[in-house]
Amino acid sequence: MALALSGPETGLDLTGFRDAVEDFLADFLDRKAPPAGNGGSPDLAAPLRQFLDAGGKRIRPILAFVGWHAAGATGDPRTVVHLAASLELFHVFALIHDDVMDSSALRRGRPTVHRALARAHQGDDSGVSAAAAARFGKGAAILIGDLAMVWSDELLLESDANPDQLAALWLVLHAMRSEIVLGQYLDLQATGDASPDVSRALRIGRYKTAKYTVERPLHLGAIAAGADQHLLDRLSVFALPLGEAFQLRDDLLGVFGDPAVTGKSALEDLRDGKATVLTALALQAATPAQRRALTDWLGDPHLTDEQAAVARHIIVATGAPAQVEEVIATRFRTAMNALDDGRLPCAARRALRDIADAVTRRTT
Amino acid sequence: MALALSGPETGLDLTGFRDAVEDFLADFLDRKAPPAGNGGSPDLAAPLRQFLDAGGKRIRPILAFVGWHAAGATGDPRTVVHLAASLELFHVFALIHDDVMDSSALRRGRPTVHRALARAHQGDDSGVSAAAAARFGKGAAILIGDLAMVWSDELLLESDANPDQLAALWLVLHAMRSEIVLGQYLDLQATGDASPDVSRALRIGRYKTAKYTVERPLHLGAIAAGADQHLLDRLSVFALPLGEAFQLRDDLLGVFGDPAVTGKSALEDLRDGKATVLTALALQAATPAQRRALTDWLGDPHLTDEQAAVARHIIVATGAPAQVEEVIATRFRTAMNALDDGRLPCAARRALRDIADAVTRRTT
Repeated sequence: MALALSGPETGLDLTGFRDAVEDFLADFLDRKAPPAGNGGSPDLAAPLRQFLDAGGKRIRPILAFVGWHAAGATGDPRTVVHLAASLELFHVFALIHDDVMDSSALRRGRPTVHRALARAHQGDDSGVSAAAAARFGKGAAILIGDLAMVWSDELLLESDANPDQLAALWLVLHAMRSEIVLGQYLDLQATGDASPDVSRALRIGRYKTAKYTVERPLHLGAIAAGADQHLLDRLSVFALPLGEAFQLRDDLLGVFGDPAVTGKSALEDLRDGKATVLTALALQAATPAQRRALTDWLGDPHLTDEQAAVARHIIVATGAPAQVEEVIATRFRTAMNALDDGRLPCAARRALRDIADAVTRRTT
Repeated sequence: MALALSGPETGLDLTGFRDAVEDFLADFLDRKAPPAGNGGSPDLAAPLRQFLDAGGKRIRPILAFVGWHAAGATGDPRTVVHLAASLELFHVFALIHDDVMDSSALRRGRPTVHRALARAHQGDDSGVSAAAAARFGKGAAILIGDLAMVWSDELLLESDANPDQLAALWLVLHAMRSEIVLGQYLDLQATGDASPDVSRALRIGRYKTAKYTVERPLHLGAIAAGADQHLLDRLSVFALPLGEAFQLRDDLLGVFGDPAVTGKSALEDLRDGKATVLTALALQAATPAQRRALTDWLGDPHLTDEQAAVARHIIVATGAPAQVEEVIATRFRTAMNALDDGRLPCAARRALRDIADAVTRRTT
């Protein structure tokens, strides 16, 4: 994603912060490698290192950093690095499990963790069947994901945050974790059930993305600088519409994105029958014939490239993508207005504006 | 399990403690139910309540309680209830994910969480295919398991433990969590790969059971009463051999147990080709013909009841079950000797002896 990360115009050194988080995570995972001569313990940190090396936007760490600045950037900056790294490792957990649940083949342009582990397990041993290797891959990926969650706790608790600060962070972290699980659950429940229900799709996005990806990271960073509830509420007024716009952009990219740029398949969302605002609006505006075709195809695991191309054509013909673009623009403006009213420190406000801009226009 | 839970002979009110933990968990999960008129939020706590209601030995909570007594039972007893409930909820997480990984059908005599969720998802809607329902069930069970882990953190942090106590508990909890993931990973890696390697099987059991089920719960309870490293080490000398015996009993029950009593299939371990000390010893002592049959059958997902009966017969003929019984008896004696040397408070010692007795002789 072309996140305009730093430069004199923002004032905040987002690139520097991101690098610090990367280094910190790399060190942490290096410490988790089994010592030499350990009797053949598998290196369970290796898949996590590889996953992080493959890229990612680091949007949650960056928002935590900006949230910290929004609240005055007081206190030990290392606490924010711990917090940001912990958020990213938690996100790795969520993505690895998400890929297992969706049986996704690609993530960040590389084989997903369960696919890579399945392949490694099979290796050159013809005695391991493809089915057994796939089963191993999924089980092992569930465990590696679990470990990422365990370690994201550990990493935060290694920080020098004082007990009161930690208690305040945990309160919001627990809310965030329950919210993302609920969002994922609602998503899973709706998957394969194509429906014109826009409010259901919006609700999924609110939990899965608006709160988890934007609001909570900002809150957590702000709490690390001792923010009060009033500031947290003001940040929410910015974060929630931006987060919805983020999800809507994601929905568009999932169907119309270039796999070479997104690193994800452009067929999967259609094949899974993901319940998005995009498909809900398309079903609402479709002619009876279009609607029949979409209902048949959305959620068909054997959807061909040709059928997908026709489905995309129909979706465009309904006007749904243009409607979604309009909603994104509206949400973006709402978020911008919140910034203007927000009386946030100038540097934080600029950074949030740049991030909002990048997040809503991105192509990956 | 016929855990001799209380009675004047032990001195510790294990039953009372277990009931307190049950009540506490029930209250906690009730609080997690969505409020009435919530717009149709799914009750993600319900599968966890049902899982806990289906039974279980509560061995980890009980050991935490005994560990607390072993260290003098000082400090706020409610902290131990929080800790024990947190351990049990973490265990629920581990079992739900374990059942997904193993594709198990039954747990505690009821359909596993992923099976129950798949069935509920399909409901009376003939539009949902069996494959789609199964996919939903596994995905949803992964999420419900994740939530159990999130909530096990939350529950512990709601306790009144002071920051120093919490920091000491977290240190061991993190070790425990990494250990169980490693144990599960080693187990998964070896599954389907029948081998006479006893030391590999022992290593799996050490991480998966001896440390996770016995040693760490005792340590954690002891830490809640301010135990020093010296006491923790003394508890390990008891816990590790007992934990190994526990795993060995589990291995025997997995193949020879009565499903009506264990609540689990007696075919699954054979069909999965679990790498246990039992099968390793059987392969070591088998004649070439027996070994060929076992190698063919262990890990065959289509193993019939008849073949399983023959496999059990072969395993008995190799003398492996008797050898495993001997190892169990040896480990039991080692654990008992540790108790005698341990200078632990008398009531804790008695409780540990009763638990060791029940754990190594159990039929479920």
